[in-house]
Amino acid sequence: MRIAIDVMGGDLAPAAPVQGVLAMASERPDVSFVLVGDEVKMRAVADVPWPRQVTVLHTDSVIEMDEEPARAVRRKPDSSLVTAARLVRDGEADAMVSAGSTGALVAAGLLVVGRLRGIHRPALAPVLPTFSGNGVMLADAGATMDADSHNLLQFAVMASLYSQHVLGIANPRVGLLNVGTEPGKGNAVCKEVYGRLAASGLNFTGNVEARELLSGAVDVAVCDGFVGNVVLKLIEGVGLGLFGALREVLTAGMAQKLAGAVLKPSLVRLRNRFDYAEYGGAPFLGVAGGCIKAHGSSDARAWRSALRQAVRFVEQDMVQKMAQGLAHGVEPAREENDK
Amino acid sequence: MRIAIDVMGGDLAPAAPVQGVLAMASERPDVSFVLVGDEVKMRAVADVPWPRQVTVLHTDSVIEMDEEPARAVRRKPDSSLVTAARLVRDGEADAMVSAGSTGALVAAGLLVVGRLRGIHRPALAPVLPTFSGNGVMLADAGATMDADSHNLLQFAVMASLYSQHVLGIANPRVGLLNVGTEPGKGNAVCKEVYGRLAASGLNFTGNVEARELLSGAVDVAVCDGFVGNVVLKLIEGVGLGLFGALREVLTAGMAQKLAGAVLKPSLVRLRNRFDYAEYGGAPFLGVAGGCIKAHGSSDARAWRSALRQAVRFVEQDMVQKMAQGLAHGVEPAREENDK
Repeated sequence: MRIAIDVMGGDLAPAAPVQGVLAMASERPDVSFVLVGDEVKMRAVADVPWPRQVTVLHTDSVIEMDEEPARAVRRKPDSSLVTAARLVRDGEADAMVSAGSTGALVAAGLLVVGRLRGIHRPALAPVLPTFSGNGVMLADAGATMDADSHNLLQFAVMASLYSQHVLGIANPRVGLLNVGTEPGKGNAVCKEVYGRLAASGLNFTGNVEARELLSGAVDVAVCDGFVGNVVLKLIEGVGLGLFGALREVLTAGMAQKLAGAVLKPSLVRLRNRFDYAEYGGAPFLGVAGGCIKAHGSSDARAWRSALRQAVRFVEQDMVQKMAQGLAHGVEPAREENDK
Repeated sequence: MRIAIDVMGGDLAPAAPVQGVLAMASERPDVSFVLVGDEVKMRAVADVPWPRQVTVLHTDSVIEMDEEPARAVRRKPDSSLVTAARLVRDGEADAMVSAGSTGALVAAGLLVVGRLRGIHRPALAPVLPTFSGNGVMLADAGATMDADSHNLLQFAVMASLYSQHVLGIANPRVGLLNVGTEPGKGNAVCKEVYGRLAASGLNFTGNVEARELLSGAVDVAVCDGFVGNVVLKLIEGVGLGLFGALREVLTAGMAQKLAGAVLKPSLVRLRNRFDYAEYGGAPFLGVAGGCIKAHGSSDARAWRSALRQAVRFVEQDMVQKMAQGLAHGVEPAREENDK
């Protein structure tokens, strides 16, 4: 098995991905890693002998965070990201991981790796931390802005299979993110997909309201990429805002500072629980190969967690499992069901 | 001026609405209030002489929280909510306030009060607390699940006028809730409405990402009712979850409890800042009369704040201002602009 790594993406590149790979390499001596990016820079951040399973594919070009994704992918075929994607497309790598621009990863996944057979639209599926339980996988979090009921059904199938086989959740509970718990609730797409999810053979537990999204009530929450992206960023915004306000409370005076010192370890733990980096990578579901987005602020530990998901994705033969699941498992063919 | 109050809705009914009205009545002796609901129950919770400006319209029937809204409004014409709405429709009251079921209020607004001339779909527009600044009005938060670009433009016009004249914000900054800041971002409706908002004459400041929604960057955020409702409930869920986790931290041991005692006043203030009840009522925009939804958990103080908004809505002649704004102000006629 070989994993391709875009070493140039993310806030802590190239140090964090290189260190993450070296740690993962000693954990899994049977896996090969191809580090794609600026060789001089990556050698500089880990000036030790590298194991033979870790190789370098040098590239000079990097896609920056502010570039328009699809255009950047087309104009920079030699960038670290596009090169990693090409390795997957050509079968020279089984999966790729990047912490760079999410849009560029999505574009590279679609334009270079290509869609999985039978897939109409893909989904980016990060696992959000929950207040109890093991997190909730949100599909889609931003790849498909206008998803129809057929797309949502495919997201549900892929995310459920990923939860089960990669994250190890037996019989994942799948919920439809909605504005109420009753079946008739929501917008036109939600009303249409509800019955299809109920008949899908998935462990569909009905609608899940946003209030309950982080309570651990479901393992997978399905929504279109617009709503999912709003959800993702709103949680970040509210979390940052509340922890910022808390910091003000804890520095308001001498007594508060003393109290803050007592509470600091617990509060840091609380904040870390809501640090997405803890939860590894977000799979880009629906492309014909492993394609994992590591969080932009991933440190070496978070990188290792994302790499572990990539390895497991390959070991579990997920591309095959998803293609089967979509073709003749829970998901009936489009022609027979759509109006 | 006369305000009709559905005294039977909300968690603290009828005590909170009655006490809120009595407080408001002494603040505004020039305003008449009609309390609609069970007279025996409402007299029991405020066993004092009521001023002459406060009258009662007795009803036996109440719409419960779990009833299907449109059906309940049709089947219970004598309910406190529908009676209050009828007073507005018949010109016997200038505005109404209810803390009952949001869905039922929306249904009563549409089916009984009726739409404002020129309005295609209405919007419920609560003001969410922000980490800095004066809050952000979210339009729509759940009335119109599938809103097109014309609907969103109308929401923007109405919410902007409301912010300006009722909430007293000069030249309100209007943002489009979106997944990125660049103009081309988002789903099909967002892409379509962006240019229309930019050309509307409103103080349109572009897209606002969910991460910045509570930072005070805009005074009005526009989105469809599905997204808005998810936003509203997610903020509640994240807030409840984080304060719950914080409570655990503060009760984990003796030292933490002592620290918690020191911090308690500040933390309670922090929580109250994020208590929606602080921000008064959410106007139901687009109906032909004042229609204010008070938060379900409103206490007497929150009721007073919602009532103040209703009074100001009438004083400012908002129905007229909105009709004008939609007809020949910032909003061009639909026929000329839609494809």
